[in-house]
Amino acid sequence: MKSDIQIAQEAVMEPIGAVAQRLGLAEEQLIPYGRYKAKVDHRLVKAMADKPDARVILVTAISPTPAGEGKTTTSVGLADALHRMGKKVILALREPSLGPVFGVKGGAAGGGYAQVVPMEDINLHFTGDLHAIGAANNLLAAMVDNHIYQGNALNIDPRRVTWKRCVDMNDRQLRFITDGLGGKVNGTPREDGFDITVASEVMAIFCLATDLKDLKERLARIVVGYTYAGEPVTAGQIGAAGAMAALLKDAFDPNLVQTLEHTPALVHGGPFANIAHGCNSVIATKLGMKLADYVVTEAGFGADLGAEKFLDIKCRMAGIAPAAVVVVATVRALKHHGGCPKEQLGVPNLEYLEAGSANLARHVENMQKQFGMPVCVAINAFPTDSAEEHQFLRDYCAGLGVPCALSEVFAKGGEGGLELAEDVLGILDRRPVHFTYADDLPVADKIRAVCRNIYRAKEVVFSAAAQKQLRELADAGYDKLPVCIAKTQYSFSDNAKLLAAPDGFTMTVRELRLSAGAGFVVAVMGSIMTMPGLPKKPAAEGIDVDENGVISGLF
Amino acid sequence: MKSDIQIAQEAVMEPIGAVAQRLGLAEEQLIPYGRYKAKVDHRLVKAMADKPDARVILVTAISPTPAGEGKTTTSVGLADALHRMGKKVILALREPSLGPVFGVKGGAAGGGYAQVVPMEDINLHFTGDLHAIGAANNLLAAMVDNHIYQGNALNIDPRRVTWKRCVDMNDRQLRFITDGLGGKVNGTPREDGFDITVASEVMAIFCLATDLKDLKERLARIVVGYTYAGEPVTAGQIGAAGAMAALLKDAFDPNLVQTLEHTPALVHGGPFANIAHGCNSVIATKLGMKLADYVVTEAGFGADLGAEKFLDIKCRMAGIAPAAVVVVATVRALKHHGGCPKEQLGVPNLEYLEAGSANLARHVENMQKQFGMPVCVAINAFPTDSAEEHQFLRDYCAGLGVPCALSEVFAKGGEGGLELAEDVLGILDRRPVHFTYADDLPVADKIRAVCRNIYRAKEVVFSAAAQKQLRELADAGYDKLPVCIAKTQYSFSDNAKLLAAPDGFTMTVRELRLSAGAGFVVAVMGSIMTMPGLPKKPAAEGIDVDENGVISGLF
Repeated sequence: MKSDIQIAQEAVMEPIGAVAQRLGLAEEQLIPYGRYKAKVDHRLVKAMADKPDARVILVTAISPTPAGEGKTTTSVGLADALHRMGKKVILALREPSLGPVFGVKGGAAGGGYAQVVPMEDINLHFTGDLHAIGAANNLLAAMVDNHIYQGNALNIDPRRVTWKRCVDMNDRQLRFITDGLGGKVNGTPREDGFDITVASEVMAIFCLATDLKDLKERLARIVVGYTYAGEPVTAGQIGAAGAMAALLKDAFDPNLVQTLEHTPALVHGGPFANIAHGCNSVIATKLGMKLADYVVTEAGFGADLGAEKFLDIKCRMAGIAPAAVVVVATVRALKHHGGCPKEQLGVPNLEYLEAGSANLARHVENMQKQFGMPVCVAINAFPTDSAEEHQFLRDYCAGLGVPCALSEVFAKGGEGGLELAEDVLGILDRRPVHFTYADDLPVADKIRAVCRNIYRAKEVVFSAAAQKQLRELADAGYDKLPVCIAKTQYSFSDNAKLLAAPDGFTMTVRELRLSAGAGFVVAVMGSIMTMPGLPKKPAAEGIDVDENGVISGLF
Repeated sequence: MKSDIQIAQEAVMEPIGAVAQRLGLAEEQLIPYGRYKAKVDHRLVKAMADKPDARVILVTAISPTPAGEGKTTTSVGLADALHRMGKKVILALREPSLGPVFGVKGGAAGGGYAQVVPMEDINLHFTGDLHAIGAANNLLAAMVDNHIYQGNALNIDPRRVTWKRCVDMNDRQLRFITDGLGGKVNGTPREDGFDITVASEVMAIFCLATDLKDLKERLARIVVGYTYAGEPVTAGQIGAAGAMAALLKDAFDPNLVQTLEHTPALVHGGPFANIAHGCNSVIATKLGMKLADYVVTEAGFGADLGAEKFLDIKCRMAGIAPAAVVVVATVRALKHHGGCPKEQLGVPNLEYLEAGSANLARHVENMQKQFGMPVCVAINAFPTDSAEEHQFLRDYCAGLGVPCALSEVFAKGGEGGLELAEDVLGILDRRPVHFTYADDLPVADKIRAVCRNIYRAKEVVFSAAAQKQLRELADAGYDKLPVCIAKTQYSFSDNAKLLAAPDGFTMTVRELRLSAGAGFVVAVMGSIMTMPGLPKKPAAEGIDVDENGVISGLF
């Protein structure tokens, strides 16, 4: 089979104006970026307030393996299938980050015959949104340190500056640094560090803001550190919010592209799924809900992390309720959950599959019973799967009372997603989300609710540091925010080795981090990596461009 | 008078397609970025090789004051004047950096009624070129440290990594850092630091490359540090050149915008004028030379630094020879050179003006006698100037044998530049550049030639460190590169306090820095700042954006 980039480069794209026209967009609502990308004026969401909202279809997954289970590919293929069926459908996906593109994972625009294009552009700078977010993040950082340097009128404690700089790169060398060295004219020596841009709170804010005013207000609420007296200091006090919003104003308009089958796709925003909520921007989802009848969107990691945050954070803040949830599974990953050794994952084996399917059942149960959502399952087909394994999963899902479709979109495009599309259309319903916790519960109780009801922990322990932080959050008035849990995506628990559907375990909240602008408190369980590193042989070594600007080596 | 941003926002721009059409560009040669910006396929330069080259008009200046003497404003106004006269003219200017925009200096797209627009876009992210350059720079840095971390097969000495990371921000806190802290999994502890993006060698390379192949070859030649045995290590050995070029391939196409009077302008590239050569990209200048009959371009700082590098580096490498050189002066700056105290600069005074005019005379003489160029003078008018002062300068220039025009483009646009345009058309000539030094002279002799012939130093001293570096450069085969001198722009000498036209001074070369990819050796005289800081009240504090995306506070 051809590589992703070969397939993408052979695609004949429609001019983006034609894609927009099919959505009913007028030329003046479109800002072109080249011939195949455009931004759409975000103010359209308000201008079209009277129009009924589209049905939102959320694509989530079982607890993943490092390779991922193909959520983006399934989302693209499902949208293409609906498009083939004559439905007015639009995708709402996350933007890739340069870090993984040059590291291990490669591109993030789908795969095979289910991709959004132009894939090279989307995977590299796209329309510059991530650079704008990085610049806004780093302007605030420079202004905080400049404030300290120029007399420190706000009395900021340099040992308690919490705002980090960022770079859109996998660069472990920047995780822990000391800066401001070199004497009096070169700043104030202090411990510091960089995050990857997608882990910046600016990205989370960008993805939750409903308009430029809301964006600016959220930016102003960012807590950048604490005074010597222990009071929080905000970006608003530093005077940075206006300039940060100015840097973000073009980026805030959602990006329109297309799939290989010309289905329109809004690709916009992409917060880290651990330190933040891990789904595309609210403004793009809402725009999609005005431009089409069906919006296909996805949430990062497995359903315990991604879908939980999508529902408890994004849907709660934005007033969205999905009409259907698709849980993506692969035979290989389920066998992995069933204890199958890595080298045997490609060998048909129903015992491992049955043992691992408990992971799928648990995610399905969470979505159905805990959140009250209509659910169906998509098996993302691999060449190594056997017909018996597929049949087992169909029977297993029948036992769970949910439809199960084989998705062959990687190999066949939208044609391979027709069965899944039929299932999705069959379960669509308008139901409110049953949130895991009420708005007014204290942060500690919200964490307990997620750990017990979604993860099935027996007990939740707060470290001494976390207990102190809980008191400080309460004192500063941040105790009623939703919680964003940062833990391993490989298990329901905070231990990556507990596969399938564990219960009875104890979870430890090590640390709490305030994202006052985004409007949530991050509960850190286990180690949390906000700056990845490059592997021994980075993907970057294989990437090239020829004299005519044709890129190779992206995958 | 209205502010720059008010004037710019009131402008009625032409759709960029219309501007391009007047240049004879077909739609498929244009890549739109919004409605008023576009990139032009750089391969057009080769495709149009048979077309005769336009005349290049270089705008340079006297030794500046911190506020600058208005080179960009004069360039824009001169182009607008030629445009009014029915000439087929195009501007070739540098792109602004975000650092100064948020710091002291504000925007860099001209001023008053002589601006390139859309000024907010050009001053903020524009088409993302600087972000692409920053990403390429930082990918290389991450790959170098990752190479060391993953086993260090090339035996790189971590104490001798010379490649720095960069950020497009004035951020003194990052000048001197230690990174790779936090133990074994987090890199290798070493001293390090950040530069502002425009000071990156990637920017200099970007501005000198003639096509994507040349770009990639230059990137591969970058020296990132030295082995324990003292051998240089290149970006090519790290395997980064292909991916860096892939990151730069869109950026490499020149950006087309327009002036307030719809004169076409290529705004592309912008290397720091001290650590690099300080002028817009070769590819944009060459593109302009194919698209128009006249190209108006500028060089950073005063003519001793900016024009010298334009001629000795850019023209030498690219085979360009200007048909005219405009030296911009202001009455205020000349009085400053004549010893006038700052608070009296706005008070008419012929004595200070006469004393300071020696600075103008020296620059004119350099351009005429040393470089063999046809020269005229533009007095960039200020409201505080007197008619007598203007008349003095006209007489003074007559004495020097060069035309002198009053430029009122800030207040009147192209109309205010007609006299200057007439002067320029009157002196146009096709002459070869007399370079300051021959290609095959050793680096030390090249430095001496510039110091003696252009700056008028009596003696040039090399520090012990510089002498050692000269030997190392010779050993490694870099001894025949052109030189790029980094010194204060406020004086012909390396002492900012020696105003007007000093001579008989001694200059000290403190340090040499190799830019093997750009293809020059930087000779550092005095202190050199590659990462600026923010002022007590950063311009950023006054910048804002409203609900409809209208930006205020940029100036």
